[in-house]
Amino acid sequence: MVDHQDAQPAEERSPDAGASRGLSRRGLLGLAVGGGAAALAVGAGAGYAVASSRSGAGEARPYDFFGEHQAGIVTPVQEHLHFASFDMMPRTDRADLIELLQDWTYAASRITQGLDVSATGAVGGSPESPPDDTGEAQGLPASGLTVTIGFGPTLFEKDGEDRYGIRDRRPAALERLPAFLGDDLVPESSDGDLCIQVCADDPQVAVHAVRNLSRIAFGRARLRWSQLGYGKTSRTTADQQTPRNLFGFKDGTANILADDTAALDENVWVAASDEPSWLAGGSYLVARKIAMLIETWDRVRLSEQENIFGREKGEGAPLSGGSEFTEPRLAKLDANSHVRLAHPDTNGGTRILRRGFNYVGGNNALGRLDAGLFFLSYQRDPQQFVTLQRSLSTDLMNEYVRHVGSGLWAIPPGAAAGSYVGESLFAQ
Amino acid sequence: MVDHQDAQPAEERSPDAGASRGLSRRGLLGLAVGGGAAALAVGAGAGYAVASSRSGAGEARPYDFFGEHQAGIVTPVQEHLHFASFDMMPRTDRADLIELLQDWTYAASRITQGLDVSATGAVGGSPESPPDDTGEAQGLPASGLTVTIGFGPTLFEKDGEDRYGIRDRRPAALERLPAFLGDDLVPESSDGDLCIQVCADDPQVAVHAVRNLSRIAFGRARLRWSQLGYGKTSRTTADQQTPRNLFGFKDGTANILADDTAALDENVWVAASDEPSWLAGGSYLVARKIAMLIETWDRVRLSEQENIFGREKGEGAPLSGGSEFTEPRLAKLDANSHVRLAHPDTNGGTRILRRGFNYVGGNNALGRLDAGLFFLSYQRDPQQFVTLQRSLSTDLMNEYVRHVGSGLWAIPPGAAAGSYVGESLFAQ
Repeated sequence: MVDHQDAQPAEERSPDAGASRGLSRRGLLGLAVGGGAAALAVGAGAGYAVASSRSGAGEARPYDFFGEHQAGIVTPVQEHLHFASFDMMPRTDRADLIELLQDWTYAASRITQGLDVSATGAVGGSPESPPDDTGEAQGLPASGLTVTIGFGPTLFEKDGEDRYGIRDRRPAALERLPAFLGDDLVPESSDGDLCIQVCADDPQVAVHAVRNLSRIAFGRARLRWSQLGYGKTSRTTADQQTPRNLFGFKDGTANILADDTAALDENVWVAASDEPSWLAGGSYLVARKIAMLIETWDRVRLSEQENIFGREKGEGAPLSGGSEFTEPRLAKLDANSHVRLAHPDTNGGTRILRRGFNYVGGNNALGRLDAGLFFLSYQRDPQQFVTLQRSLSTDLMNEYVRHVGSGLWAIPPGAAAGSYVGESLFAQ
Repeated sequence: MVDHQDAQPAEERSPDAGASRGLSRRGLLGLAVGGGAAALAVGAGAGYAVASSRSGAGEARPYDFFGEHQAGIVTPVQEHLHFASFDMMPRTDRADLIELLQDWTYAASRITQGLDVSATGAVGGSPESPPDDTGEAQGLPASGLTVTIGFGPTLFEKDGEDRYGIRDRRPAALERLPAFLGDDLVPESSDGDLCIQVCADDPQVAVHAVRNLSRIAFGRARLRWSQLGYGKTSRTTADQQTPRNLFGFKDGTANILADDTAALDENVWVAASDEPSWLAGGSYLVARKIAMLIETWDRVRLSEQENIFGREKGEGAPLSGGSEFTEPRLAKLDANSHVRLAHPDTNGGTRILRRGFNYVGGNNALGRLDAGLFFLSYQRDPQQFVTLQRSLSTDLMNEYVRHVGSGLWAIPPGAAAGSYVGESLFAQ
């Protein structure tokens, strides 16, 4: 699709209409570093004047970026994940943070529609400037791309410092997750001031998003860690098959589904009556990088594997009988089986929305695959995850997994057209 | 698809018919370790008696495993790659190697058809044994899976030792690639006695293949390194779009196509008149892990990026004019542009079949993406690659890439039904 080339004011155009007037000077600087002043002049002055060469807008299910809730939570789980955690740069201030969120909103509102990261795009700028868009997604459709932005505890206060004047707006529930039995966390895959969950059905589109949002953050935030994943391990709509994790089992059969609005309101969305009010319509995101000792698991006999899960491995039916979607009779399962310990009935009705992905990162020096589950869950209150994770402390499966990464972020509500993600946090 | 459950002899059945009588005792041992003797009895004695639960056979383009050439070379490039390099275990002998190749052939002939790794499969064995198949691909179709097996120089001779009685059958051309200017190779992503190139349109199916072939190798070969990739960077059929690499450029426009049999015979397949005769119908595979310094690249102005490639970034037309598939007029391009240096006319007509993939492995401590190109090429003689790589020694692009991994393998011809990959190497 060729973008608008006329002199029509930006505000009247979609998708830019909803997202300020384009990238900030600083955002353009990130794109232009090394290109000299010409880049700034072209980017800022004529940002809407040149064609985008992305052809895919409108194809392959572009999801709205603006709305009541951020996309990427109840959106049907896509095939690929690129999750990125960022830390704010030293000496940045409140205005920098707001500008960054505005820039990310602008760019995300475009790339989720299959457009380049700016109107100037990959090839529309001056030949004497680095391109605004890195270009590897040219010609690819939107591919179901969603970009979901979150705020970590350290954004509100770090080492006692209130860097952005938002300390008193920190949700009381937003603090580093408590240590759990068996945690083996590494800082290189934990925490972060900000996070971006990028999901898409094409890995190139997901990687393109993280890469370009990282560029735009130049001088304001820096990529702290990132994680790729594939092959969703949860279904969020009834017509999706329950996928299998790397232990070969169907997992997430009992997940909250996108059309179950009552369950979402009860368990996922922060309500207007919850504190703080700026987070109403938002959620909390837990990420856990769970390494799976698959070579060890693969040597466990089938009956024991099934006992550990509480489900049979083929169809995924609970060991208490029936088929995959039959409610398990918990008393018939091993008291420390995964299904029993994770079940709402064992946890006072606690439910979460799971949205995890498998990951494989090659292998270690012993020839063992570096693989596991990048667990992601959305909940109205982090305590829901804490309750479940504590319940799982006696899970028979723990012998075969190691939690090596962890993070918690508050997920602000969706931005209205004309606004930006997180605006309610800064409103007085 | 439910597999055959009757007492029909294995030889009469497809796809097992072509692949010996099933896994060797040693192959089953790999699957059964920890399960005790029961596993062996069940696995070996009743290997064909129980259902496979994979439902996907026949869906999503299963490619023949048996044939004149191995699949995965001229097969239309799939979406995902899991490449694995193996070293033989100490104290293994010729019979071990042959048995391993027979076992890999058996398993690969099944999984490429969307079946479990053995007839016993993921859930068909004794509950008191570890499952033959790890199970995470249950319910998934064949997904275009190909498994391509290769022999490294060290398989023929290592530290002066002729471990498998094949030293005198080593192709003269099969030796470690020479050092190239700017090489920065690490042993952890280089070389190996054996390699398996696994490609599929579903990453779970590709990972499942490497994982299960690694298990089957138990006691005989060990995973040395592996590499995941996605988003093919080359097209091998005319109806595939030329994909973009992580520099945002279309790459491989001039690749040899699968239906150009004359070019394949000339440039890719080892001929009956070449030496050694056991390799006729085979090829040589070069793998190069090429890290791309994408943050640096992203700061290069568009005109310079295009000058370096010799193509414009949008449509991919040569800078000498025309459209993507217009032959470049080389004299009009920068003398050290990539297209010019890599072009057959600059290299005495040398052509190769490229089959590479992008890779992204997260990021380093500086927040830079660990990303690049996992270059794979097939050629009739490794000298073709050497010629091209030497020509590229002055490539302007070298400033933005680092070659961190390298390997060369002889790719034996395809196995006939009833035979196994590599049989010609061991025939007298």
